Amino acid sequence: MRAHRLKVKIYYEDTDAGGVVYYGNYLRYMERSRTEFLLERGMEVADYHERGYLFAVVHVDINYKKPARLGETIEVDTVVTEMSHVTMTLRQRVFRGDDLLVDAIVKLACITKDGKPQRLPEEFKSLFTG
Amino acid sequence: MRAHRLKVKIYYEDTDAGGVVYYGNYLRYMERSRTEFLLERGMEVADYHERGYLFAVVHVDINYKKPARLGETIEVDTVVTEMSHVTMTLRQRVFRGDDLLVDAIVKLACITKDGKPQRLPEEFKSLFTG
Amino acid sequence: MRAHRLKVKIYYEDTDAGGVVYYGNYLRYMERSRTEFLLERGMEVADYHERGYLFAVVHVDINYKKPARLGETIEVDTVVTEMSHVTMTLRQRVFRGDDLLVDAIVKLACITKDGKPQRLPEEFKSLFTG
Amino acid sequence: MRAHRLKVKIYYEDTDAGGVVYYGNYLRYMERSRTEFLLERGMEVADYHERGYLFAVVHVDINYKKPARLGETIEVDTVVTEMSHVTMTLRQRVFRGDDLLVDAIVKLACITKDGKPQRLPEEFKSLFTG
Repeated sequence: MRAHRLKVKIYYEDTDAGGVVYYGNYLRYMERSRTEFLLERGMEVADYHERGYLFAVVHVDINYKKPARLGETIEVDTVVTEMSHVTMTLRQRVFRGDDLLVDAIVKLACITKDGKPQRLPEEFKSLFTG
Repeated sequence: MRAHRLKVKIYYEDTDAGGVVYYGNYLRYMERSRTEFLLERGMEVADYHERGYLFAVVHVDINYKKPARLGETIEVDTVVTEMSHVTMTLRQRVFRGDDLLVDAIVKLACITKDGKPQRLPEEFKSLFTG
Repeated sequence: MRAHRLKVKIYYEDTDAGGVVYYGNYLRYMERSRTEFLLERGMEVADYHERGYLFAVVHVDINYKKPARLGETIEVDTVVTEMSHVTMTLRQRVFRGDDLLVDAIVKLACITKDGKPQRLPEEFKSLFTG
Repeated sequence: MRAHRLKVKIYYEDTDAGGVVYYGNYLRYMERSRTEFLLERGMEVADYHERGYLFAVVHVDINYKKPARLGETIEVDTVVTEMSHVTMTLRQRVFRGDDLLVDAIVKLACITKDGKPQRLPEEFKSLFTG
């Protein structure tokens, strides 16, 4: 399945006194992209939340290559690279045009509202096409 | 001139343990909406920033009427209600459908990079149509 | 009762590309100060949260007078100025030394987890000494 | 040299609708801890910023083991594990009491205001004691 691409416009809130996007904020954009990636496939994160399926990030490995700046529009792309009964691993990359700004691997675990691991919903299998 | 309307999708990053959008985050959405309001009229905030025109918020009066929640899409609308040589006052309202969630008055002053007041760029006059 | 004062150190996360603290972040510092103000008087916000007492901000009137910058330590002071059965109004000011940076009035309402108004816990009366 | 430990109190702003600290926020706490680690050794990040020495994060590898919650106080500890002429690698761990919540490796590069790599200031050598 093709990658999902989400556009993100950079506002003052995203930047810091260094004049570029604050490094922690890319994790926000990656979450937005994951949410839209799932929605595009008919899976609404807020609905799963209501039904007691939460997706906790357990690992992030993120390389910052080039900074984004005020007023730019960047794109976050998301693909599933691995899947087990309980976890799902994504590759998420941030681009400005053809320039790769950020390259990350993100692993999520499906948990209950009490934080206990649980199997990913059956339909999640379709997200990973190997 | 008609109001500008910006759609904002609510992600986990926007919410807090109370299950609703954190009260401080509406100020982010209002800034996003101001930026797009200006852009729609040919005024790019990042360009003004480069050229030494910054817009500092000097006053916000904000009423929180109803909360927004995870997964919802809200809309922020922006109109100019007053303008002087140096300042500009906006009314910014947040809606979910027809429901008014947040109603705010925001006053900005045009400043230099050193924080000194300066006249609003000439073309800003067109933003206010009385 | 004397005002509560909370020290806040300014890090990169707090600033934006304008080189100063992002205007929305002062609402975070005010919330931190309210929490510590209550804690100092034996009232733990997280405990009230557990017991179903949430405090929703319903109104903020905030004046931004001077900006804070990277590396500075500012102080947020909180006093109760009014109280009803359900609401509580605070004045919260941000200082850098003797310099007043931000001056705000914040009104909170006591609500249930479902967002319904409820009476402030009895012990809150002691916060307001008129 | 001993590790630096910074206490961080968790407020509503830090949490999300899952009832725990938002995963991106740990990167804020790690930055705060790095700043205080350096300050304790006489190196003020804001001064370096003024003098044109910025420290850009180029890589983060972060494991989330247990969540932190509203009202808790966590501690972030920072040690230098590697150093080159231009980069510095830190291990940063987040604890609640003896419980390890988050374990991260963070690599920073010294850059100019224009984003060009430059040698770390001479005195940084003292941070790494092997």
